[in-house]
Amino acid sequence: MPKSETRSSTGEIRAVLFDTFGTVVDWRTGITRAVEKFSAEHGVPLDAPALADAWRALYQPSMERIRSGERAYVPLDTLHRENLLAVFEHFDVDPGRFGAQEIDDLARSWHHLPPWPDSVAGIRSLRSKFIVGPLSNANTSLLINLAKYAGLNWDVVLGTDVTRAYKPDPTAYLGVVDLLGLRPQEVILVAAHNDDLRGARSVGLATAFVRRATEYGPNQLTDLEPTGAWDVNATDIEDVVGQLVPS
Amino acid sequence: MPKSETRSSTGEIRAVLFDTFGTVVDWRTGITRAVEKFSAEHGVPLDAPALADAWRALYQPSMERIRSGERAYVPLDTLHRENLLAVFEHFDVDPGRFGAQEIDDLARSWHHLPPWPDSVAGIRSLRSKFIVGPLSNANTSLLINLAKYAGLNWDVVLGTDVTRAYKPDPTAYLGVVDLLGLRPQEVILVAAHNDDLRGARSVGLATAFVRRATEYGPNQLTDLEPTGAWDVNATDIEDVVGQLVPS
Repeated sequence: MPKSETRSSTGEIRAVLFDTFGTVVDWRTGITRAVEKFSAEHGVPLDAPALADAWRALYQPSMERIRSGERAYVPLDTLHRENLLAVFEHFDVDPGRFGAQEIDDLARSWHHLPPWPDSVAGIRSLRSKFIVGPLSNANTSLLINLAKYAGLNWDVVLGTDVTRAYKPDPTAYLGVVDLLGLRPQEVILVAAHNDDLRGARSVGLATAFVRRATEYGPNQLTDLEPTGAWDVNATDIEDVVGQLVPS
Repeated sequence: MPKSETRSSTGEIRAVLFDTFGTVVDWRTGITRAVEKFSAEHGVPLDAPALADAWRALYQPSMERIRSGERAYVPLDTLHRENLLAVFEHFDVDPGRFGAQEIDDLARSWHHLPPWPDSVAGIRSLRSKFIVGPLSNANTSLLINLAKYAGLNWDVVLGTDVTRAYKPDPTAYLGVVDLLGLRPQEVILVAAHNDDLRGARSVGLATAFVRRATEYGPNQLTDLEPTGAWDVNATDIEDVVGQLVPS
């Protein structure tokens, strides 16, 4: 896409919002480490990367029950804990071996994930010109703790417990845009996931794809390339900065 | 109050939230300047400090109609605009002399107010140990714009358009505490207003009084001293830091 075209479609941008798991932070490395630590502390042999992947695989189906209306909204912390117990069962791990607090703590390991190498500096650069924040399926307290842990400096943190809707439900995008006092075209979503960008575009937000080729590990097959003509197509968040802030 | 007593009552604190107008920013100076600028631009002679005071005087009554249930929630930006028109009438200023956008812009001068001299550094110091954010009657977009303008670095910004309740309605405090994933006693409200601290304490939050003796101008009569046995009694936000972060 020629640069002039990118500029014209992003010229009105006032806020840059980020999908978080996979786009800003490396959940697979963080969760694998947390499971390894748990495994060592309890003397339970666990295939940590496999458990991390199985845990994340239950993420979309658990939110889909809420998006479809089958289940009332519960925050992502609740889904993470339920999904962890389901994964324990799948891995033949008896949760009765652990205290409730120990399971809580492992379920909350999503509050402490490492950023990708370009995330902290990239977001800091954007902050001088734009309102920056997460636009994630996480609840607010998770996002606050994650920001503290990863050193992310946001202007605003509004989780799905504010909008009570999971992306790509239109309310998840538009509820946040409304609280920012902006119009959809004044907000750009940065995400490593084409589905999320499709959801954002369908309700009028601008879109930026960031390539995270190892989010799902060394054998990743999906989201290696943009599958839509997004407004920005970037290799990482620093590249988003380069395209949104003309030097 | 002996220091040891202060410490014991604030030892559980995880988040420090700030009343904003008057406590963190000097609304009277900011609004007076905005009115002076408006007056000069339009060639309309206005007593700017008197107009600022009259505008602020309508703040509590306009929220009270919503707190009492007489009126459904509307954001503070809406109240500020309505109250500005009422003040124009009181000052015999015909709003028909100005465009709707010009009135909008003046009504939104509450988005751009100067911080008190100790606010930016004090809040920055607290951020290394606590979650920090506003707990204000403003809407979210006002608070985001104000933070950008005044150079305030918050971890989280949740306006009354999230809780849809105005302090001292219990929901205004507890809705934010809940989104932070904390218990009331883990949150301290810092405010220059005894009424606000009374509301916070009534629902279990810890409380810190900050003396802002010129918030209402040189002849201020109220809130010159704490009227309750608040957990912290401070001269400014730097003093709050000194009492919450043992050196």
